[in-house]
Amino acid sequence: MTFVAPTEDILFSLRHVAGAGSVDGWDDDLADSILDHFGQFAAGVIAPLNAVGDRQGARLVNGRVRMPDGFGAAYAELAAGGWQGLTLPEAHGGMGASPLVAAGVSEIFSGANHAMQMVCNLVPGAAAVLLRDGTAAQQAEWLPKLAKGAALSTMCLTEPAAGSDLSAIRCKAVRKGPAWQITGEKIFISGGDQDMSDTILHLVLARSGGAGLGGLSLFACPRQSAVTVTRIEDKMGLHASPTCQMTFDAAKAELIGAEGDGLMVMFTLMNHARIDVALQGVAHASHAARIARNYALDRVQGRLPDKSPARLHLHADVARMLDRQDRLALGARAMCHVTLVELERGKRPALVDFLTPLCKIAGSQAGVESADLGIQVLGGYGYLREYGLEQIWRDARICAIYEGANGIHERTLATRALRPGGGSADFADLIGELAGHDRAAMARLADWKNRADRMRHAEDALAQAHAFAQDTVTLFFDAVWTRIAAVADKHPQPERIKGLALA
Amino acid sequence: MTFVAPTEDILFSLRHVAGAGSVDGWDDDLADSILDHFGQFAAGVIAPLNAVGDRQGARLVNGRVRMPDGFGAAYAELAAGGWQGLTLPEAHGGMGASPLVAAGVSEIFSGANHAMQMVCNLVPGAAAVLLRDGTAAQQAEWLPKLAKGAALSTMCLTEPAAGSDLSAIRCKAVRKGPAWQITGEKIFISGGDQDMSDTILHLVLARSGGAGLGGLSLFACPRQSAVTVTRIEDKMGLHASPTCQMTFDAAKAELIGAEGDGLMVMFTLMNHARIDVALQGVAHASHAARIARNYALDRVQGRLPDKSPARLHLHADVARMLDRQDRLALGARAMCHVTLVELERGKRPALVDFLTPLCKIAGSQAGVESADLGIQVLGGYGYLREYGLEQIWRDARICAIYEGANGIHERTLATRALRPGGGSADFADLIGELAGHDRAAMARLADWKNRADRMRHAEDALAQAHAFAQDTVTLFFDAVWTRIAAVADKHPQPERIKGLALA
Repeated sequence: MTFVAPTEDILFSLRHVAGAGSVDGWDDDLADSILDHFGQFAAGVIAPLNAVGDRQGARLVNGRVRMPDGFGAAYAELAAGGWQGLTLPEAHGGMGASPLVAAGVSEIFSGANHAMQMVCNLVPGAAAVLLRDGTAAQQAEWLPKLAKGAALSTMCLTEPAAGSDLSAIRCKAVRKGPAWQITGEKIFISGGDQDMSDTILHLVLARSGGAGLGGLSLFACPRQSAVTVTRIEDKMGLHASPTCQMTFDAAKAELIGAEGDGLMVMFTLMNHARIDVALQGVAHASHAARIARNYALDRVQGRLPDKSPARLHLHADVARMLDRQDRLALGARAMCHVTLVELERGKRPALVDFLTPLCKIAGSQAGVESADLGIQVLGGYGYLREYGLEQIWRDARICAIYEGANGIHERTLATRALRPGGGSADFADLIGELAGHDRAAMARLADWKNRADRMRHAEDALAQAHAFAQDTVTLFFDAVWTRIAAVADKHPQPERIKGLALA
Repeated sequence: MTFVAPTEDILFSLRHVAGAGSVDGWDDDLADSILDHFGQFAAGVIAPLNAVGDRQGARLVNGRVRMPDGFGAAYAELAAGGWQGLTLPEAHGGMGASPLVAAGVSEIFSGANHAMQMVCNLVPGAAAVLLRDGTAAQQAEWLPKLAKGAALSTMCLTEPAAGSDLSAIRCKAVRKGPAWQITGEKIFISGGDQDMSDTILHLVLARSGGAGLGGLSLFACPRQSAVTVTRIEDKMGLHASPTCQMTFDAAKAELIGAEGDGLMVMFTLMNHARIDVALQGVAHASHAARIARNYALDRVQGRLPDKSPARLHLHADVARMLDRQDRLALGARAMCHVTLVELERGKRPALVDFLTPLCKIAGSQAGVESADLGIQVLGGYGYLREYGLEQIWRDARICAIYEGANGIHERTLATRALRPGGGSADFADLIGELAGHDRAAMARLADWKNRADRMRHAEDALAQAHAFAQDTVTLFFDAVWTRIAAVADKHPQPERIKGLALA
């Protein structure tokens, strides 16, 4: 059950489905080379640690987090390869690669080892925050460390009483001369400590002013003795990703951006993280699909209607499940890529805000559904740890929970996103573009527009949010599949894509 | 996150939804007393071992299986209470209770500790096999041991190359004088060994004749030195249920029933086990619903549309998930109870065969879906081991796989069950009865009948099997809910039931 990076599928999706070529700085050959190179590194160095990490888990020893065996050495190789600085500007020691290529790298990383990716991959978002809102001094201090892997970063939002509702944050920031001191407790902090990087940059949302969201500011807080990990959580999956409970005891920190703008500044990081979570789900969907198909191609069980012995993939119901897995992975991936290309083009920012929660929901659901189908294809073997699917199922399950529980995103879609300027008009345009103005698709779109209109005036919009969001996800999913089918000939396996388009 | 038996819901379902009172020997007060008594025992003695069992798991030590700490003592109490002989005839040392009451007991057992239930609860099926097809000597030897818990039993079907396709079984049975000798390998044998009962009765499907299903016979094979456990599987869940790989090396055994009738004899056991698996799923659905609702009633997060702080259950999307969990548990349970009442009435055997796979599919899906929703309600906490939902999710997942993977049952429904005499006409009658001949329900039923007709002649019936079976499950589920709603006033919490009926 070895990991193989789905490089061809990713490149097909970026280039031909999402149209990455229209983005400034995109280079086909460079993308090909980077993904191929990282795919080999991920398969050879990172993926073999995935099961080890699940078994051992991260441990808290004398107040410090110890990563599972082999993680430190693999991280050193990752950092030496420059991968941590992939998208950072060359001026700050990075490689300046396209965020579109980085999305491919990130997906491959997650498929190989979600837990390790989780600890490493808040860096591009943190760098984006510093580049947009940090001072020159902050950029000079942190960006080179992040680029070469000397520092990893975290996102410290959640507190025991402040989960989905960040307005309840109590962690306090007090000004002390030019610097600040942070005091309070944070929970569910991924990578709150680890023994792979020399230091850690904690981005902390804390209360510098009065009540509510307007009293929150964002702070850069390096690892220091005043920041302690008091517990790591015992979770159903992602065992190698230390989920930390942390205490800040007058920890020295610097303000990033303006006072009271914490949430706004953090949004840069959160939106980045959300697409990354969607791609984690895609990675799981794709990996689970590959494991199940390989198993089914090999296993003989039962007979075909003509009584000849059948390999498993020839049974109609198994074929259905395998195709559904593949469709989920390709469709959710395309949704993410289309969104990222829109982000890079920068022409329709409201559309990007509208699409981001759709990707988060679709990607997180695709990961769990594909893992579930994969388990079912393998039957009893799917329930065993050695076949790897059950770990995928457990690891993938977090994606619907973190970076905003899916229900919160569904609420956003059913309310804020439907208001004027919320991107819903651009979304309707996009669906038309993707579906090539196909008549049936346009009729469906007209139905969706009517429904969206009713949602805008519905008194029970919150109660309808889930159903509306799911149908909106399906509309987007089907539209990207229309687009995928239209460009199937550009894929190295065109017949596979055409078959899936009909499935 | 303590376990509380859903005794009121079970009694309501048996009595008022399924009409248990119409079955000979049913006694309201006795059912009440037995379920109440067992519910307290399960909550006090069995449920506390559930998390322990998950952590420790069963272990193979010097060729013998050791159950987790406390399981032996709890089993001794269970056996001393006479619970293992609940449905066995009094003449053989049992309590002679109604199988309908036993279904309630079994569900409660599974909710408290699925893994332990799994090891204990193949006994009623084994007893049914002996009562129908065993000789007087076999009955006299085994039934009293099973009734008082001195023996537990297993069902030895699967082999490495014979999973869903039992015709590929290679395990060989050779006659030696009046007895037989069994040689071969079996895998995925639940409770293939344990250290709770004095002995074990293995019911082994083995090849006594030529190729194919007709060459298979069923054998009673006691635990002995010629039967060894070579491995126990490392699974995603049910850690305390030892799933054994076993070798039979000329193990002494007795034929049960006629030579070549193995599969037919085994069907008694398998049909029993399938409804029991459905109830395992129901148990998980119900337990997960209770954990999530209790958490949501207690947790304050976010604000209501009027800006007041909200307990979690008041958020529209959380309320939706909690109600769906409850609906799944009550609906799937009612499907099982309706089926069991039909079985006891004995008037429509083909209908029971038609309903059994529907229950298996609905129950197994309900368990996983409710656990999944419960995790989502708790958010990050749902992903932690300490809240118990993730164990429910992992444990419940097996139900769609064992006792016939759901895809196999879906194939049966789309093919054999639609043939003349397959029970589909009785099923249509039953839907009408349950739905009180409501006009909308009857229109839906007419659609279903047309579709079933098309399925009978469809060349691609196998490819449509999943969708057809799922829609058939939904028809049955909705029909029992019409019935549940109609008798809501008989429930101790009528408003809860009426609210769920509208959800």
